[in-house]
Amino acid sequence: MGEKPIWEQIGSSFVQHYYQLFDTDRTQLGAIYIDASCLTWEGQQFQGKAAIVEKLSTLPFLKIAHSITAQDHQPTPDSCIMSMVVGQLKVSISHYITNTFFLNNFSNACVCTNEFFRLAQHNP
Amino acid sequence: MGEKPIWEQIGSSFVQHYYQLFDTDRTQLGAIYIDASCLTWEGQQFQGKAAIVEKLSTLPFLKIAHSITAQDHQPTPDSCIMSMVVGQLKVSISHYITNTFFLNNFSNACVCTNEFFRLAQHNP
Repeated sequence: MGEKPIWEQIGSSFVQHYYQLFDTDRTQLGAIYIDASCLTWEGQQFQGKAAIVEKLSTLPFLKIAHSITAQDHQPTPDSCIMSMVVGQLKVSISHYITNTFFLNNFSNACVCTNEFFRLAQHNP
Repeated sequence: MGEKPIWEQIGSSFVQHYYQLFDTDRTQLGAIYIDASCLTWEGQQFQGKAAIVEKLSTLPFLKIAHSITAQDHQPTPDSCIMSMVVGQLKVSISHYITNTFFLNNFSNACVCTNEFFRLAQHNP
């Protein structure tokens, strides 16, 4: 099997790092956002590192685990990376989720400038 | 209620246009892709307008309808637009899906340079 393309390596490393922080200490997530970052969480919009970390840190659950079912990565025309994840978020019961990230190079670091989160099952 | 931000207007117009074409005549979808466009469809990768339209046109169903549960839009730092949709795809039965688009301005037209599609429920 050939080596994975670079965007897939970066994207999957990011996803692993993100969920590891999310599931152990969400207050550490600040390192992956910048002040221009946007998060849409179940339709609610947040902008900037501080607002995003406050939202993620104050979600009403303490113990949580993510289980990734599938993750896809693509390079964008301007050499950024898009990643879409589908999986489950296990709190007391499991919820199907989808999470999308837009990764930029910022001061030689990989940061997330755009993120979307939705529970995958809603009543239409 | 104030007017919606421009990225939300463009994103939601695109999503409406995309699903209308998808549900009526998928061969018309070529107009929204360029040769640099990438599609990841259930983990399979396609690049370029021709390859993407061939994939979408030859999906094994003739009659289809999308039902959008929620759609979120964000501007990216380089003035592009990201849109994430969760909803259902109704063929013979309904399937929960998630669809993400990255929209660029190309020769004064809004085109999709990156797209992801996944069924939201897999067996983990």
